[in-house]
Amino acid sequence: MHQPAASFSDVEAAAGRIAAHAHRTPVATSATLRRETGADVFFKCENLQKVGAFKARGALNAVLSLDDEAAARGVITHSSGNHGAALAYAAATRGIACTVVMPDHAPQVKIEAVRGYGANIEMCAHSDREVATERLIQQTGATLIHPYNNRHIIAGQGTAALELIEDVGDLDMVIAPIGGGGLMSGTAITTRSMLPEAQLFGAEPHAVDDAYRSLQTGQIQPAVANPATVADGLLTALGELTFATLSWAGVEVIRVAEDDIVAAALFHLHRMKILVEPSGATGLAALRALGDEVRGRRIGIIISGGNTDLRWLPRS
Amino acid sequence: MHQPAASFSDVEAAAGRIAAHAHRTPVATSATLRRETGADVFFKCENLQKVGAFKARGALNAVLSLDDEAAARGVITHSSGNHGAALAYAAATRGIACTVVMPDHAPQVKIEAVRGYGANIEMCAHSDREVATERLIQQTGATLIHPYNNRHIIAGQGTAALELIEDVGDLDMVIAPIGGGGLMSGTAITTRSMLPEAQLFGAEPHAVDDAYRSLQTGQIQPAVANPATVADGLLTALGELTFATLSWAGVEVIRVAEDDIVAAALFHLHRMKILVEPSGATGLAALRALGDEVRGRRIGIIISGGNTDLRWLPRS
Repeated sequence: MHQPAASFSDVEAAAGRIAAHAHRTPVATSATLRRETGADVFFKCENLQKVGAFKARGALNAVLSLDDEAAARGVITHSSGNHGAALAYAAATRGIACTVVMPDHAPQVKIEAVRGYGANIEMCAHSDREVATERLIQQTGATLIHPYNNRHIIAGQGTAALELIEDVGDLDMVIAPIGGGGLMSGTAITTRSMLPEAQLFGAEPHAVDDAYRSLQTGQIQPAVANPATVADGLLTALGELTFATLSWAGVEVIRVAEDDIVAAALFHLHRMKILVEPSGATGLAALRALGDEVRGRRIGIIISGGNTDLRWLPRS
Repeated sequence: MHQPAASFSDVEAAAGRIAAHAHRTPVATSATLRRETGADVFFKCENLQKVGAFKARGALNAVLSLDDEAAARGVITHSSGNHGAALAYAAATRGIACTVVMPDHAPQVKIEAVRGYGANIEMCAHSDREVATERLIQQTGATLIHPYNNRHIIAGQGTAALELIEDVGDLDMVIAPIGGGGLMSGTAITTRSMLPEAQLFGAEPHAVDDAYRSLQTGQIQPAVANPATVADGLLTALGELTFATLSWAGVEVIRVAEDDIVAAALFHLHRMKILVEPSGATGLAALRALGDEVRGRRIGIIISGGNTDLRWLPRS
């Protein structure tokens, strides 16, 4: 009964659209992890993507899908995180206006990142952000680009799994983090088409397990209030489009503990020498949580991003 | 009058010998750095090499160059750092015995790394290491593999620049860190042959500038006593073979400040999302020290390794 928000053809079209402005990111492996798990694991390194996260893919696809008339009026979003920077970057590549509504408490480093791409920034109280955004849309005619509940965004995020499968071939399992569900939805659409037999796992912190409960109950559950997780990119609830897509694809959510997320991020840093934000390390944490089930299997994991202040590093 | 310790043919032979056991590491670029410097900079990521450093290349070439009789008696070295782990790894790939003489004060993590590859470890006081090593050679007939003053080691290290130039083509400048000079010597031999017109720069901390003074005075200067640098991989003095090679090639040494080394390592981490040890970040620090001279040029930089405890990270 559920339908995916986009088709695999949409993902393929997105791949062509964004190719000139997004990196084809490398795939990393680890002999140490192979010895530990008995699995052949292929990490798609979206931490090495433009703006430091997979979000560049969806934002580019959304901006490049606008007709000229809509593009001339610009784009707008509200975001305190990677999506704001990604949309600003995407708008800059097309030379169109971009407004990012940011909460008053947004970290200075995020504000600078958005400003660095030339976007307009509108600060407001977090609770006013939807009203403020709506007012700006009325004034400018800008197109709202939602961070995940948007079919162009979802199709764009699906290009990471497309490249991964093109590069490494057959996989038994594909794992990606779940926040709002855009990356997991795109990953699911691509995987169901290219590798129909593969198992699909979403990785989510125990502390903010609304996606797990949404898929269990068959109804979108709200984001956890006062969330206590190091994975600050995974706080949002699913949207209608991502909920429908994950339900259609039969994605199973693996919940992971905070200590295991930090341990996974440290493995990426010290053993693989790459900086992965805690949200992005949930995929490796989920792999480890699967235990013996992964032995002898070929597994793809999407590392979502690498933008982090390192406050999660243990102090020695 | 000076002669290089190895020929470019030796480097090419090494590339074939080590290919099955060393990674062809990726080349990284940064749009942010291009805006900052006006240069096209290509980083050869030896932090993503086996054992986390370029040292795997030389060690593999040395071990794989032994005849069967010598190989059967094993190999030995003294090292508290990456070379010990690299030689242990190389010996394991050939299935031969390896002994690493380590100082009593060696960090536990380095000891575990060597042990993890199955090598024998002999602990001794730092001042006794040469005597201890000689005694073990008498007992076992093992071949001593010096960390840099060895032509097979130098030829092996030259394969990093070989791959870099094969991958990115023409370069105006090539930069690598200088400690004992093995990496810089191999890089110089390769570059002088493949790109005769390119400038060759070595990067060295101001605090341990013995290589700078050695090339200035035309005589090998001893290592600095009580060195105070974050670049703990660059403490050793040049050897006869590396001094001769660097002199032959006309390598110019750029001395870099401690703050600039840390700033470069932070740039690699936060902007490029890769973990680089401070010694390995001296190349970027040297690039920046060159200032306007690099504008409009194509520059290759060898990142030597990524094994670091992160104690150099600023605490916020």
